[in-house]
Amino acid sequence: MPTQPATRPDLTRIHEAVAAELEEVERRIQAQMATYQGTVGDLMGHVARFAGKRLRPSVCVLAGKAVGTVNTVHYDVAVVAEMIHTATLVHDDVLDGADTRRNLPSVNTRWGTEVSVLFGDYLFAKAFALCASIPNRDVLLTMAETAKVMCLGELLQNVHRFNFALTEQDYVDIVQRKTAHLFGSCAELGALASGCDPETREAMREFGNAVGIAFQIVDDHLDLIGDEAEVGKTLGTDLDKGKITLPLIGLFERLDEKRRREVQALIADPKAAGKRGQVVALIEAQGLRDFALDRADGYVAAAKARLAVLPRSAFREALESLADYVIARRK
Amino acid sequence: MPTQPATRPDLTRIHEAVAAELEEVERRIQAQMATYQGTVGDLMGHVARFAGKRLRPSVCVLAGKAVGTVNTVHYDVAVVAEMIHTATLVHDDVLDGADTRRNLPSVNTRWGTEVSVLFGDYLFAKAFALCASIPNRDVLLTMAETAKVMCLGELLQNVHRFNFALTEQDYVDIVQRKTAHLFGSCAELGALASGCDPETREAMREFGNAVGIAFQIVDDHLDLIGDEAEVGKTLGTDLDKGKITLPLIGLFERLDEKRRREVQALIADPKAAGKRGQVVALIEAQGLRDFALDRADGYVAAAKARLAVLPRSAFREALESLADYVIARRK
Repeated sequence: MPTQPATRPDLTRIHEAVAAELEEVERRIQAQMATYQGTVGDLMGHVARFAGKRLRPSVCVLAGKAVGTVNTVHYDVAVVAEMIHTATLVHDDVLDGADTRRNLPSVNTRWGTEVSVLFGDYLFAKAFALCASIPNRDVLLTMAETAKVMCLGELLQNVHRFNFALTEQDYVDIVQRKTAHLFGSCAELGALASGCDPETREAMREFGNAVGIAFQIVDDHLDLIGDEAEVGKTLGTDLDKGKITLPLIGLFERLDEKRRREVQALIADPKAAGKRGQVVALIEAQGLRDFALDRADGYVAAAKARLAVLPRSAFREALESLADYVIARRK
Repeated sequence: MPTQPATRPDLTRIHEAVAAELEEVERRIQAQMATYQGTVGDLMGHVARFAGKRLRPSVCVLAGKAVGTVNTVHYDVAVVAEMIHTATLVHDDVLDGADTRRNLPSVNTRWGTEVSVLFGDYLFAKAFALCASIPNRDVLLTMAETAKVMCLGELLQNVHRFNFALTEQDYVDIVQRKTAHLFGSCAELGALASGCDPETREAMREFGNAVGIAFQIVDDHLDLIGDEAEVGKTLGTDLDKGKITLPLIGLFERLDEKRRREVQALIADPKAAGKRGQVVALIEAQGLRDFALDRADGYVAAAKARLAVLPRSAFREALESLADYVIARRK
């Protein structure tokens, strides 16, 4: 069973440590989305309301404050990160045929596939143009590389749908690219922009990476095992789409070959009804309900260990709480 | 009837003026596509074979040679331009449900919608990462802005599908963003990277813009009126998709209200059979077969006039021929 921190980390308190900075990030994100008219204005207004937990900006700003002071580079990284993230969400929802995103209709539900693809492209290009304006070359190159790595991760994930031979290492490699690299860049660049030493830079990259892997493991766990009303978005799409996530990999390892082939045939059958319930029941019967969460725990522990490189401060504590939060979160 | 140049411009001869430079561009494009394995390697290999007319690299390199010497910035701009262009083609083919691209199966035909969307994203991000590595900040910012403008143009075009109130100016504004801006950037940056003065820089931007508008007008004309076997890609998709292009705008202007509404109802009817044939017959009956080509002629003439800013040379002549080619091309 995963070890839970004694008190459940409260995202509000984490955000409070950098409230003024996150307000500035929010103001800049909203400014990027404003000034449009007609349908493009409606689209921008819609995704502006998607405003999620702003975890990536929080990581960036907290890393900066933990090392020194926050400057415009932090804001640029935070806004670019959030816009790239939003662009990938818009395309993810198209591909997953998801109805709901953060309790709002997804862009594809409201405007259809074509507009969603092109609007995602536009958000991505907007993020690119903002990124290009960052005067710090090191930061610009890192964010550009991150965008590339993320897209490759998304592509690899899709290419490996229904690949029942996917190992835990393959899964982690994909998640590293798709999700963790951006968290790593936010942590690394946040510290770098405040003038950290190379050792801290590397440690913060590793902190962000590990947090990002844990975050995605939990996300995938919830998609298979979570409750839709609690999580606030369409769930179960991974299984329908043949996305092989950690609970499934754990299950395949436990079952004998005959049983494994039966479950894989069930997952591969587009007409099988009640698939998710059956698979979850099997996972629970094997005592694997918390299998993925245990793995996520390991990444969070590794992430928190890397924070030892930072001097003690309220910001370092908030980064620890943020790492705990990615496991504790249920929505 | 559009004025045709006395001898039909031959793209081979245009390319010969900068053969060594285009070979270098080609080598660099292929290098960007290499080093991948598995499905991603197959995808890269496939789009590497899409190799089109390389008009944008030609514009960039010719502009450079017309002003001075060619350096790595020209190659960076040319490769980035071609990769952004390829990414938009991959997404266009998904949205149009096109089967064929340059006489090859489209990516969506071979790998499906999801892979096509994500692979287009990845190509785009790769172009972005390459662009970010350009040491010349002016060039980097211009290309980033171009990517953004292009995506907005694509989005606006889609949003205005079946908008029968679209004027010729609206159409040109969309085409300017979607297609011409990139041609403009290639011409401007090609000249700039060879050390041109501000007047030449502006003239070359205008040359590229006008060539780009003419290019897209011809493309849209061919989609409605061209021959599929000659053009080498799926045609008629604009009409099915409700994309309002110049021949239609001309037709709507000529018809009385009753007849116009009937034609618009035909275009809007998803079940209407033989739509393309009927619409083309109406366009021809109104003497509008060359309406769009006449407009393209005007843009080409304007483009060529701007070349007066350059000293006379084989490269300036090749740029003139390239402008003529965008009208003369039939595939």
